[in-house]
Amino acid sequence: MTVLPVVPLDPGAPQLRRPYDPRQPLLRPYVSEAAAFRTGRTTPRAFLEACLARMESDEPAIRAFVSHDLAAARRAADAATTRWAAGRPRSPVDGMPLVVKDMIATADLPTQMNSPIYAGWDARADAACVFALREAGAVVIGKTVTTEFACGNSGPTRNPYDTARTPGGSSSGSAAAVGAGMATLGFGTQTHGSTIRPAGYCGAYALKPTHGALHVGGVAPLAATLDHLGLIGASLEDVWATGMAISRIVGGTPPHAGLAGPELAPDAKRPATLVRLETLGWKETPETARSAFEAVVAALAGAGVTILDRRNDDAVAALEAELEGIGEFANDLLAWESRWPLAAYRAHGPEMVGGRIQDLLARAARLDPASYARALADRQRLRDRVARFVGRADGFVMLCSSGPAIEDHGFTGSRNYALPWTLVGAPAFALPLLEADGLPLGLQIAGFADRDAEACAIAAWLRDTLLPEQEQ
Amino acid sequence: MTVLPVVPLDPGAPQLRRPYDPRQPLLRPYVSEAAAFRTGRTTPRAFLEACLARMESDEPAIRAFVSHDLAAARRAADAATTRWAAGRPRSPVDGMPLVVKDMIATADLPTQMNSPIYAGWDARADAACVFALREAGAVVIGKTVTTEFACGNSGPTRNPYDTARTPGGSSSGSAAAVGAGMATLGFGTQTHGSTIRPAGYCGAYALKPTHGALHVGGVAPLAATLDHLGLIGASLEDVWATGMAISRIVGGTPPHAGLAGPELAPDAKRPATLVRLETLGWKETPETARSAFEAVVAALAGAGVTILDRRNDDAVAALEAELEGIGEFANDLLAWESRWPLAAYRAHGPEMVGGRIQDLLARAARLDPASYARALADRQRLRDRVARFVGRADGFVMLCSSGPAIEDHGFTGSRNYALPWTLVGAPAFALPLLEADGLPLGLQIAGFADRDAEACAIAAWLRDTLLPEQEQ
Repeated sequence: MTVLPVVPLDPGAPQLRRPYDPRQPLLRPYVSEAAAFRTGRTTPRAFLEACLARMESDEPAIRAFVSHDLAAARRAADAATTRWAAGRPRSPVDGMPLVVKDMIATADLPTQMNSPIYAGWDARADAACVFALREAGAVVIGKTVTTEFACGNSGPTRNPYDTARTPGGSSSGSAAAVGAGMATLGFGTQTHGSTIRPAGYCGAYALKPTHGALHVGGVAPLAATLDHLGLIGASLEDVWATGMAISRIVGGTPPHAGLAGPELAPDAKRPATLVRLETLGWKETPETARSAFEAVVAALAGAGVTILDRRNDDAVAALEAELEGIGEFANDLLAWESRWPLAAYRAHGPEMVGGRIQDLLARAARLDPASYARALADRQRLRDRVARFVGRADGFVMLCSSGPAIEDHGFTGSRNYALPWTLVGAPAFALPLLEADGLPLGLQIAGFADRDAEACAIAAWLRDTLLPEQEQ
Repeated sequence: MTVLPVVPLDPGAPQLRRPYDPRQPLLRPYVSEAAAFRTGRTTPRAFLEACLARMESDEPAIRAFVSHDLAAARRAADAATTRWAAGRPRSPVDGMPLVVKDMIATADLPTQMNSPIYAGWDARADAACVFALREAGAVVIGKTVTTEFACGNSGPTRNPYDTARTPGGSSSGSAAAVGAGMATLGFGTQTHGSTIRPAGYCGAYALKPTHGALHVGGVAPLAATLDHLGLIGASLEDVWATGMAISRIVGGTPPHAGLAGPELAPDAKRPATLVRLETLGWKETPETARSAFEAVVAALAGAGVTILDRRNDDAVAALEAELEGIGEFANDLLAWESRWPLAAYRAHGPEMVGGRIQDLLARAARLDPASYARALADRQRLRDRVARFVGRADGFVMLCSSGPAIEDHGFTGSRNYALPWTLVGAPAFALPLLEADGLPLGLQIAGFADRDAEACAIAAWLRDTLLPEQEQ
């Protein structure tokens, strides 16, 4: 087992730059290899070794990991190899290489949360999602860099396509590791934008499920009504099968019974109508990224999808107007709900937490139960407005971020495209189908609460339509 | 700091037996001493020393503690003494001696949950309730015995009035310590009956608040929709002021904004109408305890309170009939919701968890999302039936347990009187006003969700009516 200290960015680390081609990503899809594992044409152990080889070559530049246990991972991959060869895999993700954001408890590796307060901390038991995936046979390679407590100082991770840029955050390490092909799947979390944004920046797929549909037990809490488990993966099929494996074994966060749908990703389904959303992020989005998005919308329309937008539909215009005001109440919800644990962390000494955490606590000190009730009501109004599209539209399409990853390692990027569906609490998928300025640009498909499988089917159709050669 | 190993009952420990007199309990009320602290007639430090003297004399027989730090407690009491003398207490509970069930995280003392898996475990940060009470100035004496993970094997604690008997559980140590006068307040938890039952057995007051009204962050989770923070205390005034101090500083579990009401306990208020409940527990209740309860009901009627019961009111009869069937769905809710973390604990090896935990996991394995949905619907039906009494009655009166503490150290007693209001999720108070066979017998007053202060006012009136001399 190797455990690295909590460190900031290392300016002396090697640089890496490679152009992004959505048709040739670095990703390593796993679930699609099932037939090869069954016949022995390849094995989970060989699959793991390819991930570890990528880790050996790229990790010095990317710095996605804070700890790992490669010997344990190889043993787990060998066990999965044996099960597949015997025709008895535990699940479709048996043997899948997995990395775990360091906000999530593991029984074997420390859980450090990018904070000196938790240096070397032993959580003793696996979080629900980790427990479930181990039961399903997945192979834990290691723990990945998070921003401090998923809301504070950035970590040392850099973008796998251009190390001068951020990987996004707070699930920085999971997105970078998956995007670089060091693992098939990475656990992240999303409280404001921490899964969809980094997945988009790093050229990975992701699912931020319906709030509560994947159990957050053992994920260090930040803001209970906002915290989601996020799945960052090499394909839609990988994130879907992973979500269903978690749901089958540990369900959702009570009282949510868990993500529902087929064990493997549903068949692609053409939507009749999609809502095009610009959000507050459009104003920040550079022309190259806008053009890439406009090309998607044109392709959808060309494929016969009716597009509703702020210009042709009053309800969309009203929703866009509503989205312009979400920042303040989103900050109030985060600040109020995270008072504990953040204040308990600060009790170790004000110098033990970063400036962003101090700022959140200062904001919380200005709130009271009445202002919290107003913020909850504001969010409910947004949810009600989205729910009115049920029956009128099949989903929502927008970018994952205001353009590709920015050249800033202290800021993980604007949350404006990711925040809306966090607040709505309904499913959102990141699809790494676009490119701008030679960098990954994520496309986001969002749906309605507890209809995650329907959103996945639409996401699959978009992928097949925009990148048809991937169907082969 | 002293940390004791996880141990079962010690049959060689000294015995203790003393008759219970509700007019002369061993309890140590704190909030009522405020004037004396202000004038210097006594001090928080002197108050603490009285608790520690009781601890020295009784703890060898009772075994309420698993760890303590008396030097730190004395320093904290001295600081509170200084603040009261300066006329600047941090809160009404500044300096109040507190003990913490060992299911609840503390930054200074280990959190061991009566399990070898967590021997010596350092949680690094205070749970929300502990953080809040330290901010409010309270003095943490130590951590108290819990049953294994609040649902498994019993610990070594014995009843403070008769060491041949159980203190109840799972909040065994907190109830015994408060009942014996070693502390004013003990944090407990209630998932089925773990606060109201032990408080009743040990001659202590308690508040099990509206579900979510007191933040459970940092309390090891068992079943999220059932887990409550419980306050076991020396008086109604102490538990109420403690609850409000917690609520002011950390609020409730999001999205609940927190317990609402006055900072100090509301004035006593005579109820016009109370519902007398027998529950499934009545059949188990011995004649001495039934007589004590009948005398209460007669006294209430004599004071002009209208009593609705299963014989004179159809709605009460229907509620009682409903309560007869709650055991099965309550077990299903507990088993399903506690799969994680219990399965993650068992992953340390089946020999590392007790038989009750194995049984819960076996029950969970027979459930599916449909059976969980049915259990949730069953509970909602119970809640709806209770809500129909709003406007018809002011509250509900019943026992805390099926008679006084039983002579069994392996079983913490029937949950039949405590379970209903756990499921209802509305406030319930334990009042140590009765005696049977020379032992404490708790009276329970229950109310409506988010109307905790109203239930407290009724509880205060009952206390003043049944024990009038305590008004002086």
